Amino acid sequence: MSINEVAIVCGTHGNEITGYYLMQKWHQDSSIIERDSFNVKTLHGNPSAYELNRRYVDNDLNRRFKTADLNNPKLASYEENRAKVINQLLGPKENPKTDLVIDLHTTTSNMGPTMLMPQRGDFYNSLAAYVKTKMPEVTIFCDEDHKDRNDHHLVCTVGKYGVIVEVGPVPQSVLRHDVFEQSEQLTQTILDFADLYNRDALPELPKTIEAFRFLKSLTLPVNEAGERIGMLHKNVQDSDFTALNPGDPLFMTFDGEVINYQGDKTVYTAFVNEAAYYDNNLATSLMEKIELKLG
Amino acid sequence: MSINEVAIVCGTHGNEITGYYLMQKWHQDSSIIERDSFNVKTLHGNPSAYELNRRYVDNDLNRRFKTADLNNPKLASYEENRAKVINQLLGPKENPKTDLVIDLHTTTSNMGPTMLMPQRGDFYNSLAAYVKTKMPEVTIFCDEDHKDRNDHHLVCTVGKYGVIVEVGPVPQSVLRHDVFEQSEQLTQTILDFADLYNRDALPELPKTIEAFRFLKSLTLPVNEAGERIGMLHKNVQDSDFTALNPGDPLFMTFDGEVINYQGDKTVYTAFVNEAAYYDNNLATSLMEKIELKLG
Repeated sequence: MSINEVAIVCGTHGNEITGYYLMQKWHQDSSIIERDSFNVKTLHGNPSAYELNRRYVDNDLNRRFKTADLNNPKLASYEENRAKVINQLLGPKENPKTDLVIDLHTTTSNMGPTMLMPQRGDFYNSLAAYVKTKMPEVTIFCDEDHKDRNDHHLVCTVGKYGVIVEVGPVPQSVLRHDVFEQSEQLTQTILDFADLYNRDALPELPKTIEAFRFLKSLTLPVNEAGERIGMLHKNVQDSDFTALNPGDPLFMTFDGEVINYQGDKTVYTAFVNEAAYYDNNLATSLMEKIELKLG
Repeated sequence: MSINEVAIVCGTHGNEITGYYLMQKWHQDSSIIERDSFNVKTLHGNPSAYELNRRYVDNDLNRRFKTADLNNPKLASYEENRAKVINQLLGPKENPKTDLVIDLHTTTSNMGPTMLMPQRGDFYNSLAAYVKTKMPEVTIFCDEDHKDRNDHHLVCTVGKYGVIVEVGPVPQSVLRHDVFEQSEQLTQTILDFADLYNRDALPELPKTIEAFRFLKSLTLPVNEAGERIGMLHKNVQDSDFTALNPGDPLFMTFDGEVINYQGDKTVYTAFVNEAAYYDNNLATSLMEKIELKLG
């Protein structure tokens, strides 16, 4: 299968403004994202949230793309409607006209440039290997909660293939030059891969690639009334993709008690203290380190 | 004059949540902020903005405290009303019942722990010298736009004396353990100073203190339609309180042009790329390095 139609979604979250400004740049000079072997277009994911300088208007657009939800006429919030429109433009999810969706995000966490892949398979493993060859500083983040693409809620799953470009740390509503450059470079590297893939011209790639697979989220400690009684311990802050061992300091309560990690094996953190996850009291994601093997 | 009544204002900006959680901690154990020689209370500056997880509801509470505005009955936004209520509780500004107001803030800029002083005078110079003795990592930020206290718009000017505790970097809506600790330590150091000042028990202090005085703000480059055409150059990012020389890279336009600093002398940056200042297209504050001299 060739990659004939590519879409880059910018500003899925209204206060992650890096993608919005990259889109403006690419409108001025579309040659930056064009390649000979496919068509490419950009799409402003959530214009109303951008105007409000907020993550979303009613609820998170990047959780609205399960096939059942896209086909449920009773779901009618701003983002539920917006998801249906994006599904018309880039999908439909069951048989998409778009072969590859690249969705641009930033995080307040110290994750550096990260590529998130929502599905398994040879295409993704080759993409990861190519990206790591060209940009060794990129972390590969596997988020494969659901074997069936239809059960995935991420925007990028509306295409046949899809990935998230996720770069941090940058505060919400801030444009950093370094994060802007990393986001553009990673996007271009993914586009280069698709072009080489189409032309059967990929270089020789490593046979195994280090990656991290999402296991679960950890919540902040709360009291019986649901109020937070502590925060992430400073030993964990900014430590994305480093080891968290059983017994390591994890939380600090406001009355001065250290709460240690209670797991039974070493895991790795990601989205550490991400601002947007406070809504759900999430403190950090826990990951396992894995190897992706090329066929 | 003794410091008899002290107020600590927390959460003046609704998405700077460090002060809010410090207030919760101090409610559990008020001995942390109590001293023998004065009364101390805490006040939640902007509860509605905190509930919304936004800087403000209608406009910035920390710009509403000019005496003329406090006494103008036509000003009736949420924050204009809130300022009048705080003026009743801690002021009135013309003859305040509160001797010292400490207003807790955070910034997305890489400023470390900073103490902002809105007025000149022996009290402030001694306070700065004491703080630098106990916490050499603190930067002293002089923001003395107006000689007359009545013309100042900051919350902390509602007391006879007032300072801002300003710590970063931390994204909006995020609680960082290290910033929480620095904010608490700086607040306690200011309270210690007030207690020693009352008891005429200050240690010997240095005769001169390094500080930075606000000169002006620089705006981001925009086109004729008012749209941003560039961002702060990465050489300036995170460089708060370091030198910016004529000819140094300052902005990067989206089409790849570097814009250099056009001033005629070396200045120093502060509030570099602060998220909250995007509303007004502000890129950075420019400061001069000064010496405060103790009498």
